[in-house]
Amino acid sequence: MLIVHIDVRVKPEGVETFRRATIENARASLEEPGVVRFDFAQALDDRTRFVLVEVYRDEAAPARHKETPHYAKWRDAVAELMAAPRTRVEYRAEYPEPARWETPRGTL
Amino acid sequence: MLIVHIDVRVKPEGVETFRRATIENARASLEEPGVVRFDFAQALDDRTRFVLVEVYRDEAAPARHKETPHYAKWRDAVAELMAAPRTRVEYRAEYPEPARWETPRGTL
Repeated sequence: MLIVHIDVRVKPEGVETFRRATIENARASLEEPGVVRFDFAQALDDRTRFVLVEVYRDEAAPARHKETPHYAKWRDAVAELMAAPRTRVEYRAEYPEPARWETPRGTL
Repeated sequence: MLIVHIDVRVKPEGVETFRRATIENARASLEEPGVVRFDFAQALDDRTRFVLVEVYRDEAAPARHKETPHYAKWRDAVAELMAAPRTRVEYRAEYPEPARWETPRGTL
């Protein structure tokens, strides 16, 4: 399992477009078999700051994610909305056990 | 629901002690009714860098967490192991829906 944190800084005028495009991408990404989580959150004290927490089942899954039509659509839709390059940090899970990181599929 | 990301830099000689103390704290914290997630992960490219992703059910839950014996034990155990002050960023969930952030209780 591979955990990726992506910090995003968005131009103020792009916040709503970014939000909508990223929710759409997250929803589709959670349907990929290699995706365990695809969490999207907005900083409380700065509406232009977001984080994506992407959790992949194995090391091959991020490359497969980047081959999907929803990723290409998202990448192109948000390219002009970035206030700074996205930063990316990769982690390994220490706790809890990998099986407990799974996002329930569908709507609860 | 409140999401808190805590970035931690540990002295090289403190990594294993920090790891063990934090796993113990995460396990106990996941038993708190106000805790939705308590994820602990280590950076792949820097063994002294860790992240905690704490997800609380409501705004009162972080204060209740800090009143627990396991939090006090952890805070004291790791105080001398920090290489830098911990940084904290608070987020609101954009996706998925809050019910899908829940960590399964017990061992799967």
